[in-house]
Amino acid sequence: MKRFLLVFAAICVAFSCFAQDDEAIPIEKIWGVNVNPDKTVTFRFRDRNADYVVVKGDMGKYPMTKGDDDVWTVTTPHSLNGGFYEYFFIVDDVMMPDPSNYYSTQSSGIVYSIFLVPGGMGDLYSVQDVPHGTLSHVWYHSDKLGMDRMLNIYTPAGYEDGHKKLPVLYLLHGSSQFDNAWIQSGRMVQIMDNLIAQGKAEPMIVVMPNGNRQLQAAPGFDTFNLTYQAQTRKYLTKTNNGEWEAAFPEIVKYVDKHYRTISRKKGRAITGLSMGGAMSTIISANYPDLFDYVGCFSCFPMGRGETADNLYDKIEYQLTKKTPKWYYHTCGPADDLYPQVQKFWKDIEDRGIEFEHEEKGVGHDWFTWRMDLTDFVQKLFKD
Amino acid sequence: MKRFLLVFAAICVAFSCFAQDDEAIPIEKIWGVNVNPDKTVTFRFRDRNADYVVVKGDMGKYPMTKGDDDVWTVTTPHSLNGGFYEYFFIVDDVMMPDPSNYYSTQSSGIVYSIFLVPGGMGDLYSVQDVPHGTLSHVWYHSDKLGMDRMLNIYTPAGYEDGHKKLPVLYLLHGSSQFDNAWIQSGRMVQIMDNLIAQGKAEPMIVVMPNGNRQLQAAPGFDTFNLTYQAQTRKYLTKTNNGEWEAAFPEIVKYVDKHYRTISRKKGRAITGLSMGGAMSTIISANYPDLFDYVGCFSCFPMGRGETADNLYDKIEYQLTKKTPKWYYHTCGPADDLYPQVQKFWKDIEDRGIEFEHEEKGVGHDWFTWRMDLTDFVQKLFKD
Repeated sequence: MKRFLLVFAAICVAFSCFAQDDEAIPIEKIWGVNVNPDKTVTFRFRDRNADYVVVKGDMGKYPMTKGDDDVWTVTTPHSLNGGFYEYFFIVDDVMMPDPSNYYSTQSSGIVYSIFLVPGGMGDLYSVQDVPHGTLSHVWYHSDKLGMDRMLNIYTPAGYEDGHKKLPVLYLLHGSSQFDNAWIQSGRMVQIMDNLIAQGKAEPMIVVMPNGNRQLQAAPGFDTFNLTYQAQTRKYLTKTNNGEWEAAFPEIVKYVDKHYRTISRKKGRAITGLSMGGAMSTIISANYPDLFDYVGCFSCFPMGRGETADNLYDKIEYQLTKKTPKWYYHTCGPADDLYPQVQKFWKDIEDRGIEFEHEEKGVGHDWFTWRMDLTDFVQKLFKD
Repeated sequence: MKRFLLVFAAICVAFSCFAQDDEAIPIEKIWGVNVNPDKTVTFRFRDRNADYVVVKGDMGKYPMTKGDDDVWTVTTPHSLNGGFYEYFFIVDDVMMPDPSNYYSTQSSGIVYSIFLVPGGMGDLYSVQDVPHGTLSHVWYHSDKLGMDRMLNIYTPAGYEDGHKKLPVLYLLHGSSQFDNAWIQSGRMVQIMDNLIAQGKAEPMIVVMPNGNRQLQAAPGFDTFNLTYQAQTRKYLTKTNNGEWEAAFPEIVKYVDKHYRTISRKKGRAITGLSMGGAMSTIISANYPDLFDYVGCFSCFPMGRGETADNLYDKIEYQLTKKTPKWYYHTCGPADDLYPQVQKFWKDIEDRGIEFEHEEKGVGHDWFTWRMDLTDFVQKLFKD
């Protein structure tokens, strides 16, 4: 089949790939999303029979109009801010990624097509001509959980040739997400490469584990192979029950053993978005000697563990006893969790726990979390 | 948007995601490709307006039939062999990946949906409960090419905790492909993990560089960011001109410096598919002291370099002078390159160059190349 497709791809340069009906539609008319020079964005989708086609994503929702060539198009009515955008089409009643866009992310069981608008945060989220760090997918054995599990580990440019010990940020994903979420949707590799190159963030190691107790790795990378769909929640049943959180020191131990780390509290930070932020608070409160820096993006510690350790119960007590050196919360005003987050903020304030909090970003979304990460890492390990 | 979608995904558990028209279609009727217990495979695609829908892929091409629920379905008429399959839909005149399948590969500018059939080679291409190696994406600087470039490097399970020096396989992709091709379509991580766990292959490091002279990394991972489409061939103009091949010793040097390698000829192999196989012959012939093991899957050294080194001209002379210890060619009888491959085999045979060749596999396809890799690595570094 591949051979056919190589030829096929070559033919596509000049003619429409889709010309089963012998139409020869110039490729540029149906190929891909286009970021225009004025930073408006044009979407195209070919369908000769649909009743309606809509594009929906981080840039808004726009109905598309069918041309004589059966190509539905729309251009955003205004320029977009520089940034990273995810979108999909709704074709009649079917939601789908853009079949003519090579680039996608997978999040919460859904495949999104993506584009980058240059300028502003878009530059920070792009691969720039700067020294690049290494991203590794490594496996460690968890005795407590009784399984091998994957860690995604970023080491900054120059790590391989250096001798200096580096601090470590543990970066956790949200609910219905996986260990690759910060890499794909969060653009963490680009953010770290760029901030470190600009001297705005300290060179640091970033460790991204999978916070779902039953999953060894992101879908497709563990023994469930290609059977996992986020819609089948059976794989997530034990997520958030406290077992994974209780086993977290095993990860720290693995990293300290195999990487050139500052293996003390002052050299460690932990944060995450939503569920991962809550887990960061829970883990750091229950292991108060591990982290000097603790973040919580769009989150409050919810849920109760079933385990004997009662990890979720001890939070406020532990936070009072040993507050992290820097305990940082953010939440966007449009976040549906905002009322509960505010309640948690008030609770810990009433107990005299020192923490910093900012209302920033928008809602419960990657637009907000990419900015949260960008701000957070610039404040770490500065002294 | 993500927040909306988390809720959206939750709703999907019980109802159709696509119910803009208030239909509540049970999710199992439209969600995903399904490998049935008898190893037939059922495909589903929802479209209420299409004139026809066809599924096409490694398993063949089948027209689909529309049901009363607007879901087009087809089940393969026979059981499939265990293996890894890529496919796409043709909906009227539009080719697209399966919008309800979370899993895909990207190859030659096209996005394929994928599924695994267990048993036979399918087990070898699956993530099994065995010790897993590490996959790293590292950057090295090429003085000769004047740029930083990415290498994908597999180290076998236990490498991090071991002390033994390991042999290295350099594994090259084909034309219009990238350094991630062997990982995505080639399933090399699974093949290596499984063969090593079974004791069938020696533990080895595998290095996968990007053989396109102009590209630092696969699309999306270099400074072209999301602008690259395989259809826009401008990025590939200098591929195969000999410059990248001439600079290959820089890669070997980087790997020997940063990994625990057997840094001699007897500890190095190089192979690739199609263009990458040709490059393997060219590189090894021009640097005859680097590799004891040289493979060439579905290929013959084609093309002429523009560079002063005349890399492509020296092949046969060098091969005569210093034949690799094991020089191994394969080609499937249905490969369109087969006549030219046969001619090359005759040429080198006439010159008295010792090599092994097998007619095996099918055509110019990943079905063949995955098997080629499986056979090749089991014969490496055994003495």
